[in-house]
Amino acid sequence: MQIKQVWDLTRFRPEKMQKVNLFQTPRMFCDIYCLEPGQEQRIHTHRGNDKIYHVLKGRGRFTVGEETHTLEAGETTWAPPGEPHGVLNHSGERLICLVFMAPHPQPDRFAPAGED
Amino acid sequence: MQIKQVWDLTRFRPEKMQKVNLFQTPRMFCDIYCLEPGQEQRIHTHRGNDKIYHVLKGRGRFTVGEETHTLEAGETTWAPPGEPHGVLNHSGERLICLVFMAPHPQPDRFAPAGED
Repeated sequence: MQIKQVWDLTRFRPEKMQKVNLFQTPRMFCDIYCLEPGQEQRIHTHRGNDKIYHVLKGRGRFTVGEETHTLEAGETTWAPPGEPHGVLNHSGERLICLVFMAPHPQPDRFAPAGED
Repeated sequence: MQIKQVWDLTRFRPEKMQKVNLFQTPRMFCDIYCLEPGQEQRIHTHRGNDKIYHVLKGRGRFTVGEETHTLEAGETTWAPPGEPHGVLNHSGERLICLVFMAPHPQPDRFAPAGED
Protein backbone atom coordinates (compact mmCIF):
# COMPACT_ATOMS: atom_id res chain seq x y z
CA MET A 1 0.00 0.00 0.00
CA GLN A 2 1.57 3.24 -1.17
CA ILE A 3 0.91 6.39 0.86
CA LYS A 4 2.10 9.82 -0.33
CA GLN A 5 2.23 12.87 1.93
CA VAL A 6 1.57 15.83 -0.32
CA TRP A 7 3.15 18.48 1.90
CA ASP A 8 6.40 16.52 2.14
CA LEU A 9 6.56 16.11 -1.66
CA THR A 10 6.05 19.67 -2.84
CA ARG A 11 9.06 21.00 -4.76
CA PHE A 12 9.63 24.52 -6.08
CA ARG A 13 12.26 25.72 -8.57
CA PRO A 14 12.93 29.30 -9.66
CA GLU A 15 13.17 28.37 -13.36
CA LYS A 16 9.71 26.87 -13.84
CA MET A 17 6.69 25.25 -12.18
CA GLN A 18 7.26 21.75 -10.86
CA LYS A 19 5.12 18.66 -11.46
CA VAL A 20 5.50 15.91 -8.85
CA ASN A 21 3.89 12.61 -9.76
CA LEU A 22 2.11 10.73 -6.99
CA PHE A 23 0.62 7.83 -8.96
CA GLN A 24 0.29 6.89 -12.62
CA THR A 25 -1.02 4.03 -14.73
CA PRO A 26 -2.15 3.81 -18.38
CA ARG A 27 -5.57 4.92 -17.11
CA MET A 28 -4.64 8.06 -15.18
CA PHE A 29 -2.05 10.20 -13.47
CA CYS A 30 -2.24 12.08 -10.18
CA ASP A 31 0.30 14.91 -9.82
CA ILE A 32 1.04 17.86 -7.57
CA TYR A 33 1.71 21.12 -9.44
CA CYS A 34 3.88 23.61 -7.53
CA LEU A 35 3.99 27.17 -8.86
CA GLU A 36 6.03 30.05 -7.49
CA PRO A 37 4.50 33.52 -7.93
CA GLY A 38 4.55 34.41 -11.64
CA GLN A 39 4.97 30.81 -12.88
CA GLU A 40 2.48 29.19 -15.22
CA GLN A 41 1.42 26.10 -17.09
CA ARG A 42 0.89 27.49 -20.56
CA ILE A 43 -2.44 26.97 -22.22
CA HIS A 44 -2.53 23.66 -24.08
CA THR A 45 -5.05 21.02 -25.17
CA HIS A 46 -5.40 17.25 -24.81
CA ARG A 47 -7.52 15.66 -27.50
CA GLY A 48 -9.02 12.78 -25.53
CA ASN A 49 -8.26 13.38 -21.85
CA ASP A 50 -10.08 14.87 -18.90
CA LYS A 51 -8.07 16.97 -16.46
CA ILE A 52 -9.13 17.97 -12.94
CA TYR A 53 -7.39 20.79 -11.04
CA HIS A 54 -7.98 21.00 -7.28
CA VAL A 55 -6.33 23.90 -5.43
CA LEU A 56 -4.72 22.73 -2.19
CA LYS A 57 -2.99 25.99 -1.22
CA GLY A 58 -2.79 29.51 -2.57
CA ARG A 59 -4.69 30.82 -5.58
CA GLY A 60 -4.22 31.15 -9.32
CA ARG A 61 -5.85 32.16 -12.59
CA PHE A 62 -7.20 29.05 -14.31
CA THR A 63 -8.26 29.02 -17.94
CA VAL A 64 -10.61 26.45 -19.49
CA GLY A 65 -11.84 27.11 -23.00
CA GLU A 66 -12.44 30.85 -23.37
CA GLU A 67 -12.95 31.53 -19.65
CA THR A 68 -10.41 32.47 -16.99
CA HIS A 69 -11.24 32.58 -13.27
CA THR A 70 -9.34 32.83 -10.02
CA LEU A 71 -9.54 29.64 -7.94
CA GLU A 72 -8.56 29.40 -4.29
CA ALA A 73 -7.87 26.52 -1.91
CA GLY A 74 -10.79 24.08 -1.90
CA GLU A 75 -11.91 24.93 -5.45
CA THR A 76 -11.89 22.42 -8.29
CA THR A 77 -12.33 22.74 -12.04
CA TRP A 78 -12.43 20.41 -15.01
CA ALA A 79 -10.89 20.70 -18.48
CA PRO A 80 -12.78 18.41 -20.88
CA PRO A 81 -11.06 16.80 -23.88
CA GLY A 82 -10.33 19.34 -26.61
CA GLU A 83 -10.67 22.37 -24.33
CA PRO A 84 -7.58 24.60 -24.04
CA HIS A 85 -6.53 24.96 -20.42
CA GLY A 86 -3.73 26.29 -18.24
CA VAL A 87 -2.92 28.04 -14.98
CA LEU A 88 -0.99 31.16 -13.95
CA ASN A 89 0.04 31.93 -10.40
CA HIS A 90 -0.70 35.65 -10.53
CA SER A 91 -0.57 35.92 -6.73
CA GLY A 92 2.30 36.74 -4.41
CA GLU A 93 2.15 33.34 -2.65
CA ARG A 94 3.02 29.81 -3.71
CA LEU A 95 0.28 27.82 -5.46
CA ILE A 96 -0.12 24.04 -4.93
CA CYS A 97 -2.67 22.02 -6.93
CA LEU A 98 -3.64 18.38 -7.02
CA VAL A 99 -4.08 17.40 -10.67
CA PHE A 100 -5.74 14.31 -12.04
CA MET A 101 -5.84 13.25 -15.69
CA ALA A 102 -7.66 10.34 -17.32
CA PRO A 103 -6.64 8.50 -19.34
CA HIS A 104 -2.85 8.98 -19.06
CA PRO A 105 -1.71 11.15 -21.99
CA GLN A 106 1.25 8.83 -22.72
CA PRO A 107 -0.13 5.33 -22.15
CA ASP A 108 2.59 3.81 -24.35
CA ARG A 109 5.14 4.31 -21.59
CA PHE A 110 3.37 1.56 -19.67
CA ALA A 111 3.73 -1.07 -22.44
CA PRO A 112 4.56 -4.44 -20.87
CA ALA A 113 8.20 -5.47 -21.18
CA GLY A 114 8.84 -7.38 -24.38
CA GLU A 115 6.18 -5.57 -26.37
CA ASP A 116 7.08 -2.94 -28.96
CA MET B 1 -16.05 26.65 -17.10
CA GLN B 2 -17.36 24.75 -14.11
CA ILE B 3 -15.93 25.56 -10.68
CA LYS B 4 -16.85 23.52 -7.59
CA GLN B 5 -16.14 24.69 -4.05
CA VAL B 6 -15.53 21.55 -2.03
CA TRP B 7 -16.29 23.01 1.39
CA ASP B 8 -19.68 24.29 0.22
CA LEU B 9 -20.59 20.89 -1.23
CA THR B 10 -19.82 18.59 1.69
CA ARG B 11 -22.92 16.75 2.92
CA PHE B 12 -23.26 14.46 5.95
CA ARG B 13 -26.11 12.10 6.83
CA PRO B 14 -26.49 10.04 10.00
CA GLU B 15 -27.52 6.87 8.11
CA LYS B 16 -24.43 6.45 5.90
CA MET B 17 -21.41 8.10 4.31
CA GLN B 18 -22.19 10.55 1.51
CA LYS B 19 -20.65 10.69 -1.96
CA VAL B 20 -20.90 14.05 -3.71
CA ASN B 21 -19.95 14.03 -7.35
CA LEU B 22 -17.97 17.00 -8.67
CA PHE B 23 -17.26 15.85 -12.23
CA GLN B 24 -17.75 12.67 -14.23
CA THR B 25 -17.26 11.42 -17.76
CA PRO B 26 -16.85 7.92 -19.24
CA ARG B 27 -13.13 8.28 -18.46
CA MET B 28 -13.26 9.23 -14.78
CA PHE B 29 -15.16 10.53 -11.80
CA CYS B 30 -14.13 13.00 -9.12
CA ASP B 31 -16.16 12.77 -5.90
CA ILE B 32 -16.08 14.03 -2.33
CA TYR B 33 -16.63 11.33 0.30
CA CYS B 34 -18.04 12.62 3.60
CA LEU B 35 -17.92 10.26 6.59
CA GLU B 36 -19.26 10.91 10.06
CA PRO B 37 -17.39 9.18 12.90
CA GLY B 38 -17.99 5.41 12.66
CA GLN B 39 -19.13 5.46 9.02
CA GLU B 40 -17.35 3.44 6.35
CA GLN B 41 -17.09 2.53 2.72
CA ARG B 42 -17.00 -1.24 2.92
CA ILE B 43 -14.15 -3.08 1.31
CA HIS B 44 -14.86 -3.78 -2.34
CA THR B 45 -12.97 -4.31 -5.60
CA HIS B 46 -13.07 -2.84 -9.12
CA ARG B 47 -11.72 -5.13 -11.77
CA GLY B 48 -10.30 -2.58 -14.18
CA ASN B 49 -10.26 0.80 -12.41
CA ASP B 50 -7.74 2.85 -10.48
CA LYS B 51 -8.96 4.75 -7.43
CA ILE B 52 -7.14 7.59 -5.67
CA TYR B 53 -8.10 8.72 -2.15
CA HIS B 54 -6.81 12.10 -0.97
CA VAL B 55 -7.67 13.14 2.60
CA LEU B 56 -8.80 16.76 2.74
CA LYS B 57 -9.87 16.88 6.39
CA GLY B 58 -9.83 14.51 9.35
CA ARG B 59 -8.36 11.03 9.35
CA GLY B 60 -9.47 7.47 8.65
CA ARG B 61 -8.36 3.86 8.36
CA PHE B 62 -7.78 3.04 4.68
CA THR B 63 -7.43 -0.49 3.40
CA VAL B 64 -5.77 -1.45 0.10
CA GLY B 65 -5.12 -5.11 -0.50
CA GLU B 66 -4.12 -6.73 2.77
CA GLU B 67 -2.85 -3.54 4.41
CA THR B 68 -4.70 -0.99 6.53
CA HIS B 69 -3.20 2.36 7.55
CA THR B 70 -4.41 5.59 9.09
CA LEU B 71 -4.25 8.52 6.67
CA GLU B 72 -4.55 12.17 7.68
CA ALA B 73 -5.17 15.40 5.80
CA GLY B 74 -2.66 15.78 2.96
CA GLU B 75 -2.12 12.05 2.52
CA THR B 76 -2.99 10.17 -0.65
CA THR B 77 -3.22 6.49 -1.53
CA TRP B 78 -4.00 4.42 -4.60
CA ALA B 79 -6.10 1.28 -5.04
CA PRO B 80 -5.00 -0.51 -8.25
CA PRO B 81 -7.44 -2.59 -10.31
CA GLY B 82 -8.32 -5.84 -8.59
CA GLU B 83 -7.16 -4.71 -5.14
CA PRO B 84 -9.81 -4.73 -2.40
CA HIS B 85 -10.12 -1.29 -0.81
CA GLY B 86 -12.26 0.71 1.59
CA VAL B 87 -12.21 3.32 4.33
CA LEU B 88 -13.47 3.55 7.91
CA ASN B 89 -13.72 6.77 9.88
CA HIS B 90 -12.52 5.38 13.19
CA SER B 91 -11.91 8.87 14.58
CA GLY B 92 -14.15 11.19 16.55
CA GLU B 93 -14.14 13.88 13.85
CA ARG B 94 -15.66 14.12 10.38
CA LEU B 95 -13.58 12.76 7.49
CA ILE B 96 -13.61 14.38 4.04
CA CYS B 97 -11.78 12.83 1.07
CA LEU B 98 -11.33 13.76 -2.55
CA VAL B 99 -11.69 10.60 -4.64
CA PHE B 100 -10.74 10.01 -8.28
CA MET B 101 -11.51 6.93 -10.29
CA ALA B 102 -10.42 6.07 -13.84
CA PRO B 103 -12.04 4.91 -15.95
CA HIS B 104 -15.61 5.54 -14.72
CA PRO B 105 -16.99 2.26 -13.33
CA GLN B 106 -20.30 2.72 -15.17
CA PRO B 107 -19.33 4.19 -18.54
CA ASP B 108 -22.58 2.97 -20.11
CA ARG B 109 -24.49 5.74 -18.38
CA PHE B 110 -22.78 8.20 -20.73
CA ALA B 111 -23.98 6.49 -23.93
CA PRO B 112 -24.93 9.12 -26.50
CA ALA B 113 -28.66 9.68 -26.90
CA GLY B 114 -30.15 7.39 -29.54
CA GLU B 115 -27.71 4.56 -28.88
CA ASP B 116 -28.76 1.45 -27.04
